[in-house]
Order: sequence, then C-alpha cells, then structure tokens
Amino acid sequence: MLIDKLNWRYATKKMDPAKAVPEDKVERILEAAHLAPTSSGLQPYEIIVVTNPDVRAKIRDAANGQAQITEGSHLLVFAAWDTYTEERINKVFDQVNAERGFTNEGWENYRKMLLGAYPPRDAQVNFEHAARQAYIGFGLAITAAAFEGVDATPMEGFDPAKVDEILGLKARGLRSVTLLPLGYRQADADWLVNLKKVRRPKDQFISKVA
Amino acid sequence: MLIDKLNWRYATKKMDPAKAVPEDKVERILEAAHLAPTSSGLQPYEIIVVTNPDVRAKIRDAANGQAQITEGSHLLVFAAWDTYTEERINKVFDQVNAERGFTNEGWENYRKMLLGAYPPRDAQVNFEHAARQAYIGFGLAITAAAFEGVDATPMEGFDPAKVDEILGLKARGLRSVTLLPLGYRQADADWLVNLKKVRRPKDQFISKVA
Repeated sequence: MLIDKLNWRYATKKMDPAKAVPEDKVERILEAAHLAPTSSGLQPYEIIVVTNPDVRAKIRDAANGQAQITEGSHLLVFAAWDTYTEERINKVFDQVNAERGFTNEGWENYRKMLLGAYPPRDAQVNFEHAARQAYIGFGLAITAAAFEGVDATPMEGFDPAKVDEILGLKARGLRSVTLLPLGYRQADADWLVNLKKVRRPKDQFISKVA
Repeated sequence: MLIDKLNWRYATKKMDPAKAVPEDKVERILEAAHLAPTSSGLQPYEIIVVTNPDVRAKIRDAANGQAQITEGSHLLVFAAWDTYTEERINKVFDQVNAERGFTNEGWENYRKMLLGAYPPRDAQVNFEHAARQAYIGFGLAITAAAFEGVDATPMEGFDPAKVDEILGLKARGLRSVTLLPLGYRQADADWLVNLKKVRRPKDQFISKVA
C-alpha cells in the first residue's frame, strides 16, 4: 500500500495552475511531517507554507525559474535551525516534562548531555545535523502527499540565501534546505509523467551480512 | 492512515529477542527505502542488512551498547557515498537511458552539469549532501516498518568510524550515517512504550505566508 503510493508519485514537472490543493489535504501532509521522528525528538526545523503569489514568484526567481513553485497552489519551505542553542533544547525537554506530567532522572541526564554536546559545537555542524532531520520530515511530506493523491516536486535547486532573505528566515535562526511545491499534475504537458521510474539495481543498493 | 501508522510507531527501547521479523516484511521495508526519492535520482547511499549475531554484537559495542541492535532480528545500516565521482554519476545516467530506451539532450545536459559540479567539490560537502538523501530513505524505512507492524529504533548514537571498520565500508566508498534495528517491542519491559508522544507545538513548527 505504501509501496503503491511511492510508485504513484514522481517529481512532477508540470502542474495545473487551475487546480488548488484543498486545505484539509495540506493539513494532513503537514501533520505527517510534524509526526516524523527526529534525533532526540528535537524537531530542529520549521515548515513555512507559502501561498502568497508574489512571494512564491520571488522564490521561483531564486530557484532557476522552476514553474511548479507558482503553478502549484502551496509551497512548503523546509528550514533547519541554524544551530542548537540551550534555549531551543530546554524548550523541547521542558515541554516533554509538562506534557508527560513528570520528570525523570535519566531524561534529565540526557538533557544535560545534549546541552553539553550541542550548543558548544560549531554552528555549521549543528546546522548539518538539523538539516538531516528536516529531510526525514521532507520525505514524510512527499509520502503523505502521495497518500492524498496530491502531486509534489522535491527541490534542492535554489539559492538558500535568497530564499532566507525573501522569507526573513535569518532573524528566526532558520536556514532553508528544501522546497516542496504541492499541486496537481498537468499530465498532457509533463514530459516525465509517462517515463519509467528508474532506481539503482537492488543488488547494488542493498547488501547482506548474514 | 499514514498518520495512524506514524502515531503507532515509537523509538522502541526494548525488543523481544525471541521474535524475528519475517523476511517478506524486511523486503517490503527495504523496497520502500529503495523507492524513496533522492536528489537527481542518484540514490547516493546503500543499505547493509546485518543479521549475523557476532557482527551485530560488535556494532552494538560501537553504539553505546544499545541492546536493540542485538535484541532485534535485523539491523539496517544506512551508509552514504563518501563523495560523488564521475563513475557513480555516469552509472546512474547510463542506467536511466538503458531502461527508458532513449537518450535526450536535456537529460544529457543535466548529466554534464552534475559532472561539472559534484566531482570537483570537496568530498565532505558531497558526503553531507549524500547523507541528507539517505535520511529520506531512512524515514521511509521507519514508515514502512510501521505499515508492517514492525518495530524499529532510529539511531544516530554510534561511532561511524568503528561501524565503517566493522563492515569494511571505507573500501566501498561508503560512510555509515544511521542505524535501524528491526524487531518487535517487548512492551512489559519498555519504559517508553506507554509514554505520550510529544511533538513541538504546531504553531511553532508551521507558519504561513498567505
């Protein structure tokens, strides 16, 4: 079932600008990303949902003119934390304690370990770690879109500094890492839609140590 | 449905060593990762499926003794390409041409662009890019396990150099990035199983530009 959905999806090249994705579908796609696992549960990224046409046009210009950004109805921007700070880590741990209704020594020791390890580290190392977590949510959003019958085009080909500028992300301690336009394929104008999905030979992708 | 599966799963802390995951379930979990999208379709990583008990014991020792590695029945090791080479890129593009049965100028220009951009780049930059792609497949494998009713524990807490050494990954141009033990929860001995799943408040995780 999951496999069927993954076979159905493809990196849509031409979206129909006349068809908008209903809000309830967008919400479920976001919910899947929100539930995605991350290292230590820190969820060190945010998703910005851009529908504003002018803002999307600016982002398209910073993304080699890729038309799906404006031909789709929604653009998800995945933006990772620029670093791990004590404040960010404590906020997550405090929330876990508040929601679970108790504190636990093992959990508090784990918090101390992270506080000792992450904030002093080089910001770029922290950002790369956060970006990897964002890719888990990115993958889940792509998958959730397929379950909703919604087309999506995963994109890395853009100028992150420009997108950060357009969305004011730097002041929020965020750096854009991926884009995901959502919409509906315009099949008669999409060169990719009927081409075979190709994956590396399984015996070169998977090996076993038995 | 996807949301239900994501709510069902959790980072299993105690697996039942008496229960093995059937091979057909493992195959479908691997298939989901194999179908996961990656940048330019390069799939710049491999998955090593370790069932050998001695090898898993060594990996557990390189992973702070995390018991799920040996208490589960299968360990998936996600290992990213250590860099992008001309050979690796050409192999993927040649395979696409062979499977689709034609060549296309736009596609060949795209190949040239990647050949000009990736191989000359610093290997660490390429590895970080490849590792991000591996996280998409990692997320899909975690999701597929949930669809199969199989428990899984996503892990980053290990010494990658040691795991690379144990599995001989360096000679294959690979670097381990994540571990995923598969098995079945031993609910009466798992401290996490009944605790509330906590996620960052949605209004701090998602924002809108309308």
